[in-house]
Amino acid sequence: MNYSIIVVGDEILIGQVQDTNSGFIARQLTPFGWQAVSIRTVADDGQAIFDAIDEGFAHSDVILMTGGLGPTKDDITKPTLCRYFGGELVHDEATARNVEQIVAGRHLKLNDYTRAQAMVPSSCRVIQNQCGTAPLMWFERDGKVLVSMPGVPYETETMLVREVIPQLMEHFHHDVDIEFRHLMVTGIIESALAMTLDEWERRLPQGIHLAYLPQPGIIHLRLTGQAADKQWLTSEMDRLVAELHQILGAHIVCDEDLPLAGIIGNILRHRGLTMSTAESCTGGNIAHEITAIAGSSDYFVGGVVSYHRDVKEKQLGVSASDIDTYGVVSKTVAEQMATGVCRLLGTDCAVATTGVAGPGGGTPDTPVGTVWMAARCGDRMVSQCKHIPGHRQRVIARATNDALLLLLSILQ
Amino acid sequence: MNYSIIVVGDEILIGQVQDTNSGFIARQLTPFGWQAVSIRTVADDGQAIFDAIDEGFAHSDVILMTGGLGPTKDDITKPTLCRYFGGELVHDEATARNVEQIVAGRHLKLNDYTRAQAMVPSSCRVIQNQCGTAPLMWFERDGKVLVSMPGVPYETETMLVREVIPQLMEHFHHDVDIEFRHLMVTGIIESALAMTLDEWERRLPQGIHLAYLPQPGIIHLRLTGQAADKQWLTSEMDRLVAELHQILGAHIVCDEDLPLAGIIGNILRHRGLTMSTAESCTGGNIAHEITAIAGSSDYFVGGVVSYHRDVKEKQLGVSASDIDTYGVVSKTVAEQMATGVCRLLGTDCAVATTGVAGPGGGTPDTPVGTVWMAARCGDRMVSQCKHIPGHRQRVIARATNDALLLLLSILQ
Repeated sequence: MNYSIIVVGDEILIGQVQDTNSGFIARQLTPFGWQAVSIRTVADDGQAIFDAIDEGFAHSDVILMTGGLGPTKDDITKPTLCRYFGGELVHDEATARNVEQIVAGRHLKLNDYTRAQAMVPSSCRVIQNQCGTAPLMWFERDGKVLVSMPGVPYETETMLVREVIPQLMEHFHHDVDIEFRHLMVTGIIESALAMTLDEWERRLPQGIHLAYLPQPGIIHLRLTGQAADKQWLTSEMDRLVAELHQILGAHIVCDEDLPLAGIIGNILRHRGLTMSTAESCTGGNIAHEITAIAGSSDYFVGGVVSYHRDVKEKQLGVSASDIDTYGVVSKTVAEQMATGVCRLLGTDCAVATTGVAGPGGGTPDTPVGTVWMAARCGDRMVSQCKHIPGHRQRVIARATNDALLLLLSILQ
Repeated sequence: MNYSIIVVGDEILIGQVQDTNSGFIARQLTPFGWQAVSIRTVADDGQAIFDAIDEGFAHSDVILMTGGLGPTKDDITKPTLCRYFGGELVHDEATARNVEQIVAGRHLKLNDYTRAQAMVPSSCRVIQNQCGTAPLMWFERDGKVLVSMPGVPYETETMLVREVIPQLMEHFHHDVDIEFRHLMVTGIIESALAMTLDEWERRLPQGIHLAYLPQPGIIHLRLTGQAADKQWLTSEMDRLVAELHQILGAHIVCDEDLPLAGIIGNILRHRGLTMSTAESCTGGNIAHEITAIAGSSDYFVGGVVSYHRDVKEKQLGVSASDIDTYGVVSKTVAEQMATGVCRLLGTDCAVATTGVAGPGGGTPDTPVGTVWMAARCGDRMVSQCKHIPGHRQRVIARATNDALLLLLSILQ
């Protein structure tokens, strides 16, 4: 099924707000075999919205629209939707009750703006927003569907998964069953992986296909299957995953679509291990990635951001003379930081970084982008040096990812 | 000047990669009075790209295109640009030398893919890419301009600022001078600020206008001036900023466009103060925000991520009996964490958080989203409790922002 995404909002066109809804929608729908043919951002302007809808329906059967709703924007999008789909704005009692409940739950008072949210085009079916006051609206015309959703990412993300996708699947796909399997693969580059799986991939049964979704240092393999016979599909998918495990062995680090920190978390939890972090140039970002995973308190004890030399020496026990001899950005210091934080916080494992994120602080021997990182698990230790090109934010992000990959490698 | 952005890339339409180039471009061009009328993402498909260009030129004089270049994608975008603008693919010697240099600088070897980057449409003027192998290309047709840029954010961001914007300004605006002034304002909500400045704003000289760019807890005021007389413009802008300082007084916390952590950093550096962080539910994200600012080692000493209770007690000296009495998510614990990290790392200031990021861990007294935060500077301490709705990532992001605002408030 082809679909289009329309993002409505002046704030996105001026760059004040980064649209993340379109990416979220695409990530959710692509696995169902749905294909976005266009993502389009337009102004809060009736004609621009009207034209975008017209053009979207010219190339696709479904339009998912986000934004242009909410108390201060209602006056443009909703009348435009009325103009396109017919009908007029009417007071909807169920929506009014939902708005009241949401507002009361936030300990706020209804005002004229929020009250107006209950006015909806008579040509739509309302999907009540469980997270906010702007109602979701389902429109149909000539067999095509437009769903209008709020611009607030948290609201659209929640409602898309809970209500919009199930309703779209029911509307368009009622007799086909869809299943996914995810495998996260490391230690092999994409082209080598593709060669390894080439033969196997050609023998995939009809309706089942494999997608490669490479990320830095890790490849997400996604197997998507569609069939009328659910039982056959499930057993085929199980068989294929077992085959992939046989072919790829230890390269497969996880059977779920998880970020690196989540994969590490699962291994730590499964093996009953705890971990900590000692960060210099990554400045807390590794701890942030680890703790972004729900349930990370099961294995993450804590961390030290040792930005100044003093903190490395006094808190982590890094040797002052080693810093003088080898430099603060060195294998020795990274390893002592990992060992030190394990001792300090009593953890089984740790990961540590020390480097120059830039733009200042580089030297001929240690240019900007040089990062030493170490990972420790029990008595085992691995360390590596990376030279990461680019600006400060890129060095921090890449060093975080590389350090997590290093920790993963020692846990395998 | 109206312009359009076209983002080329299958990987964005399937949601694998989040487009950030369009937002970056818009943030850079909006202050020049340039208006994006549409941002459009299309597939790596010749006809889709051709149609998007056609449509972009129907509504705007300039198209900025990103993506669809690079070693493995060249075969679609460049021939399409040839088809649209005429000419044929030719070998460009200057581009070949640039590609060689870039590849050599990365200690890699030229292969057929990278060598092919030197083939460019004869109808374009090349802007050499200083950060990567894909050349930037400037096309003109009927007085309209299209600039094709790489998809890699680091390359496009760098080259846009260094080369593309100056060349666009020279091409379109040669006799007008543009100046900006930025003021960051806190402690007043947008509607109240707009009322305060209403009268003043109406008296702004022609060619100078004020934009409100609200962020959570902070409002970015941007004054943009365009005039042929540079001297007059500079003195007018200076006068207007001085008037804004008179009207808004201590509400103005910074005279630059900086993120919250940068504003705090400037104040700390100016006053010769140091700071540290003690984080529970924010898990290192505050330290990450602080250290994302270049030069933060001038004032940021380090931090402790005290995820487990033990770390709060042993490292930060939080009283075990107070945790038992008041709970780990409490004013007392947040304040003891801030005090403890100041003592441990010998800093003047600190910020601390303790809360429930969810989805698990909530109780009737302390539901998910409850966050206590404290900020300390010298002998002064402020603390507050926030109830943040939404999922785990949102609670962490909002708590980080609120904690930084709290720290800013005690520094003012």
